[in-house]
Amino acid sequence: MGSSNPIPSASTASASQLATTQWRPLGPPDSRGIVQKVSLPIPIGAHAAQTEKDMAEARARTAFDPQRIEEVLRDGRIDNETRKQIIDVMLKDPVFVDWKKRLPHMNREQAMAMSHLACRRILEVAAREDWDTQQIIEAAVGLDLQSPITIHWVAFVPVIMGQGTAEQIDAWGSRAMTHQILGCYLQTELGHGSNVQALETTCTYVPETDSFDLHSPTLSSTKWWSGGSGTTATHGIVQAQLIIGGKRYGPHLFFVPLRDVYTGRLLPNIVAGDQGAKTYSGMPGLDNGYVRFNHVQLPRFNMLAKHAQVKKGGEYVKPPSDKLSYGGMIFIRSQMIDRTGWMLSRAQTIATRYSLVRRQFRDPDSTDVGEPERSVLSYPSLNRRMVPLLAKSYAYIIAGRRMRHLYEDMAEQLDSGNTELLADVHVASSSLKAYCTKQSIDGIEESRLALGGHGYSVYAGFTNIFPDNAAASTYEGDNVILAAQVGRAMLKNASLLERDPEKVKLSNTMEFLRAIQTKADQGKGIRFRPPNSPSEWLKPEVYSSAIQLRAARRVADLVAEVKGGRRFVDLSWECIEVSKSHAEVVIDTWFTEGLANDSERYGKREVEWLSKLVTLHALICIQRDITPLVLPSSQGRGLADYPAGTAVLTPESVLHLETAVRGLVEEILPQVIGLTDAFGWTDWELNSALGRKDGRVYEALMSEAEGNPLNHPRIQSRSFEEELDNNHLGRYSYGSENVGKNVADTWKRHIGPLLLDANKRSGDEPIRGNGSKL
Amino acid sequence: MGSSNPIPSASTASASQLATTQWRPLGPPDSRGIVQKVSLPIPIGAHAAQTEKDMAEARARTAFDPQRIEEVLRDGRIDNETRKQIIDVMLKDPVFVDWKKRLPHMNREQAMAMSHLACRRILEVAAREDWDTQQIIEAAVGLDLQSPITIHWVAFVPVIMGQGTAEQIDAWGSRAMTHQILGCYLQTELGHGSNVQALETTCTYVPETDSFDLHSPTLSSTKWWSGGSGTTATHGIVQAQLIIGGKRYGPHLFFVPLRDVYTGRLLPNIVAGDQGAKTYSGMPGLDNGYVRFNHVQLPRFNMLAKHAQVKKGGEYVKPPSDKLSYGGMIFIRSQMIDRTGWMLSRAQTIATRYSLVRRQFRDPDSTDVGEPERSVLSYPSLNRRMVPLLAKSYAYIIAGRRMRHLYEDMAEQLDSGNTELLADVHVASSSLKAYCTKQSIDGIEESRLALGGHGYSVYAGFTNIFPDNAAASTYEGDNVILAAQVGRAMLKNASLLERDPEKVKLSNTMEFLRAIQTKADQGKGIRFRPPNSPSEWLKPEVYSSAIQLRAARRVADLVAEVKGGRRFVDLSWECIEVSKSHAEVVIDTWFTEGLANDSERYGKREVEWLSKLVTLHALICIQRDITPLVLPSSQGRGLADYPAGTAVLTPESVLHLETAVRGLVEEILPQVIGLTDAFGWTDWELNSALGRKDGRVYEALMSEAEGNPLNHPRIQSRSFEEELDNNHLGRYSYGSENVGKNVADTWKRHIGPLLLDANKRSGDEPIRGNGSKL
Repeated sequence: MGSSNPIPSASTASASQLATTQWRPLGPPDSRGIVQKVSLPIPIGAHAAQTEKDMAEARARTAFDPQRIEEVLRDGRIDNETRKQIIDVMLKDPVFVDWKKRLPHMNREQAMAMSHLACRRILEVAAREDWDTQQIIEAAVGLDLQSPITIHWVAFVPVIMGQGTAEQIDAWGSRAMTHQILGCYLQTELGHGSNVQALETTCTYVPETDSFDLHSPTLSSTKWWSGGSGTTATHGIVQAQLIIGGKRYGPHLFFVPLRDVYTGRLLPNIVAGDQGAKTYSGMPGLDNGYVRFNHVQLPRFNMLAKHAQVKKGGEYVKPPSDKLSYGGMIFIRSQMIDRTGWMLSRAQTIATRYSLVRRQFRDPDSTDVGEPERSVLSYPSLNRRMVPLLAKSYAYIIAGRRMRHLYEDMAEQLDSGNTELLADVHVASSSLKAYCTKQSIDGIEESRLALGGHGYSVYAGFTNIFPDNAAASTYEGDNVILAAQVGRAMLKNASLLERDPEKVKLSNTMEFLRAIQTKADQGKGIRFRPPNSPSEWLKPEVYSSAIQLRAARRVADLVAEVKGGRRFVDLSWECIEVSKSHAEVVIDTWFTEGLANDSERYGKREVEWLSKLVTLHALICIQRDITPLVLPSSQGRGLADYPAGTAVLTPESVLHLETAVRGLVEEILPQVIGLTDAFGWTDWELNSALGRKDGRVYEALMSEAEGNPLNHPRIQSRSFEEELDNNHLGRYSYGSENVGKNVADTWKRHIGPLLLDANKRSGDEPIRGNGSKL
Repeated sequence: MGSSNPIPSASTASASQLATTQWRPLGPPDSRGIVQKVSLPIPIGAHAAQTEKDMAEARARTAFDPQRIEEVLRDGRIDNETRKQIIDVMLKDPVFVDWKKRLPHMNREQAMAMSHLACRRILEVAAREDWDTQQIIEAAVGLDLQSPITIHWVAFVPVIMGQGTAEQIDAWGSRAMTHQILGCYLQTELGHGSNVQALETTCTYVPETDSFDLHSPTLSSTKWWSGGSGTTATHGIVQAQLIIGGKRYGPHLFFVPLRDVYTGRLLPNIVAGDQGAKTYSGMPGLDNGYVRFNHVQLPRFNMLAKHAQVKKGGEYVKPPSDKLSYGGMIFIRSQMIDRTGWMLSRAQTIATRYSLVRRQFRDPDSTDVGEPERSVLSYPSLNRRMVPLLAKSYAYIIAGRRMRHLYEDMAEQLDSGNTELLADVHVASSSLKAYCTKQSIDGIEESRLALGGHGYSVYAGFTNIFPDNAAASTYEGDNVILAAQVGRAMLKNASLLERDPEKVKLSNTMEFLRAIQTKADQGKGIRFRPPNSPSEWLKPEVYSSAIQLRAARRVADLVAEVKGGRRFVDLSWECIEVSKSHAEVVIDTWFTEGLANDSERYGKREVEWLSKLVTLHALICIQRDITPLVLPSSQGRGLADYPAGTAVLTPESVLHLETAVRGLVEEILPQVIGLTDAFGWTDWELNSALGRKDGRVYEALMSEAEGNPLNHPRIQSRSFEEELDNNHLGRYSYGSENVGKNVADTWKRHIGPLLLDANKRSGDEPIRGNGSKL
């Protein structure tokens, strides 16, 4: 197993010593507020006692300082120190300390009530601690809280601030910023999501009263999916078709009062409600809702008027540029990328830690029967799946941060009327959103599967990560629709290049397109030679070129289909691969650049290890879809320097690639604990018995199981309101002497009678005694 | 769009006519017991009214009789007519009619209590209707009920019947068959799952008392995951290390009383409880549990003794063959394959129906502004993802049935001591289990994503399908461990073939291995020529050969790695692809054979269309991993007729393959409603607003949303027990005049105070009026 074995041999204690180790409470400092115990004195045994040691030894092997990486990675909305202070506050709060554990024991109605409670409480805590909005958001994010107040910050306040005039911001924005009103954003309808232009809700200007008439004319025009609209929001931003004098001006935004701010009752002519639970119990504390308007009157002032305006009498003033409102659409997508990396990093932290301490099967070639079982992370079937996902986590976090910065640069430009960056940011945010959301959610589930059977337990800690992110592939632009937009942009650039390559300016993530100019056959393509050894594959100029050549081949294929006479609308399938291959060019470029830009902050050894992840990420991107590189191109599909009939890679270079990936994974393997520690996830955030930082996984599983509310039924049946008020609902009882005490009472409700009835029906004699002597 | 467009133009009614259509209740006959209404008179509008017509027209286009296919496909444990009678009974039952709708509104404890109620009730209904066990199981399956009683049938009764002696079956089996006792199966432990040999629970023979001492020596030996053990089972079958006179004999099975059959209390020296919720709220009504034994005394009679026995005094009698107990391990796996197809077919039925009636975007090249939007199913980005999944559904159902039959043949052989089929059934069941569970769960999630935003609603109907099946990749043999076993079998056969090819007998799903004999270079390989046209790809001898050549190349690569000196234990990653490529050989072969065997029952036109699915399935299997066919093989990795340096496919043949797949999808597209109808899913089973057979998706979503319990809070807070007893919990209120009536009361608990406090903190004047005039 050599140096690549992530676990040491278990030389630390003899089996007999360990078998007598007794249970120790799992308590502070890691879980601070909560001390987990069990009621039974259980001997731990060698297998369970080893996990803590394995974790400590692996951590001690770390060749760099994870803390340095964490400080840079976590320096986002707020700095890392502030983040940790917030987590400390949450850990001391009696409601928030075990919030995540309790949620799976609440039904939809209970979770929604608890979500309202959390919205209120988080503001109380914030007032006491003097937090600003960024700090409040950080607290909510740490809590995995998907609630009406989250939507208020993400989708209501920014729209007023970004699309409202100074007067409107003054009227609504300040009340909203200080939570005196709570808002939602109502765009999608029952019948239309992706096709925004086809939204059916109308808002008609009435010159007689100088006001608008907001109306839901059909069933399918009912506003649907808006978070917070179902039971909470007092106000909403509604997207509706503006109609003046019978003429349609397309979708515009309107500020609409929904509920009485003192009673919570819906205002006249408005019908709204919660639209039901989400799949996989996702986001149970968010009241996505349906809302209908029956000729609701709005003052003319209520149309958000930073760009387009309606004057008294009905004159329509166009926005100075059609493209100005694009910014808002790209905004959310460009904010999503690093989050896909963070969510994956969370799954990876859990999977890596548990896989390290989980031992299963002795080495089959070992003759020593006393040899401990191997860490499952030492098996290639596991580490070849996991280490690449670790690389992806870093890639999406670091590339995602560049996406944010590029968006900010663009927004600044837009404010001064400059649209130069717009096209590039639009394409990059589209292909990254489509690619990273899917890669991340697939990687999360792959990480869970790597946990084996225990991955199916709620204590694995995946209950929030997967369901809450499962919607990301379809919201904010369905992934396949975004892919088609990327394909269209590629065709446009390819066609410009064909006409006049000298004139076309391309960003470094689009430069690869020059390779498809067949006129530029002579040495103007992407420089590349098939590697003659595994180590050659590790050179940035080699792997990056291969990624770019692959993207170029995918676009060349798309161009060929169009030239062959197929309509663009029929090429949406082909666009999916084009978009993926482009996304990998972007991530490879930005991951590399992002690391280089922060190299001094990270430190030398840290950059050395992170660079290996850049390389690994690039190589697995090539392996993901290698066919275009090994298949000779057909007539009319060649690239510069690669005429039809030639392939980019040789069979031997493909074998070298596989060897390079294997070597790199083996090299990184002893550092994976350090590399996942560096994400900086706390045990409270992870909420995972398997992902505990100290490695005491089996002790944690046992105490969670024993303490779980199902084993502590209350004889006095309390009502939901009582449970809420007394803060009982879903609470765990660790180390209680009463564990299981009343379980038999619940058993007797239905199982007892079932057995007696079955006995009667059978005609058999009743079972004698208690059934233990059958 | 031509004939491949799955939807007709909307010529049936003018928009103005449709806009005035009013809501009609969604009632019998499809939803029998429940009539769904809404409280508001909403004009339907053209968009929502069109869906029903689109569905009817698509159905009318069907070129074959779906009912004929359904009768053959559904002729399983019971025939289709009996199945439908059972569903009728369930639809008329006041508890079961809306059971699936109610579950998402229950928390874990409530779902568990409801599961106990269901266990009792299903037996009462069965007694009244005179159902046999197969019929009861069918009812439970239709209900998606994962409960203690399901485990009793699947994992307790069969083990007694299969591993017990006649005496033991007499003592326990008959009580179990008639539900006078309820059982569970306790194998996996906290510390060990895959590695069965390392289980830590001991069962020591005590000659003095002629009895066994069952004991859990360590924390990690705690029995874990056993369904029904947490709160329900009266008895369990426990797998424990048999120890006699200090010598270990490996894991054996013991019949162990757990709970008093009259009181439900745990018997002395046994500790057990529920082990907690499952991820994604999966299987909430199943009490997977932890169980510990503290020197529990068992009579010697309680060891299951069909194969191995312990005589009085401690003499151990070995089973006649080590392989005899394999049968049981293969049993569950071989039963899982067709289920993966059925679950996928359910997702596909929903996705296909909704995608057909969902219209989004007009044709971009159309100049007619009045043209209706296109069915999203007409976009290749959607249909290229969906139609292949439809083919996979049929493939796994039909190949899975052959797997069952092959298992039965093997079991019959085993009973007479013949182990001829064992190796083949073991390999096939391993590779199919690993492959089909993963393909199916990925396909289910892909189907959900195809629904767009509404796919995230619980009303999409995926709440059970995904979480309940998400465990299948890790239980009954973790997929990657099974893949390694497949790889090992391939290496073994390859090595036998190398020594003496004439002597080796291979089944038709392993014959492809002969291609890797390099000695047989001259015309003894798999006959194949790269197709010169798309239509050539449609020939069975062409696509099946390509699938087999790919599998052969994967095995040849594995052989080369072993010959190159790598240890088998380090090749687990490579085994994954070997196993997948072998699974596709098996499915292709059995799907073809299964269809041919039943061709008369299906009917001529039906076989014609199903054959297209066989072809499509084969072609997408080739596309899934085409690199080994287009990459020339390296030195030492050639196949018969394909020496090193040659590739199987040409660039043009790869383009033809893509054209063939595209053409086939377009050809099948108008028939997808018929092909999904043929699975025979009823609306009650699907429990999906989007997958309604009548296509009235938007009306259904609206009524579900309005009726959802969150919009009908009760002022009188009732206790859980009262809710259960009055059968209120999670019940929907369709068309109630009181919709939303008390929502403001819940709002006032926390949101009202939140706003008031925020106002005070801000120092602003209080908001005047109700907040509608900001």
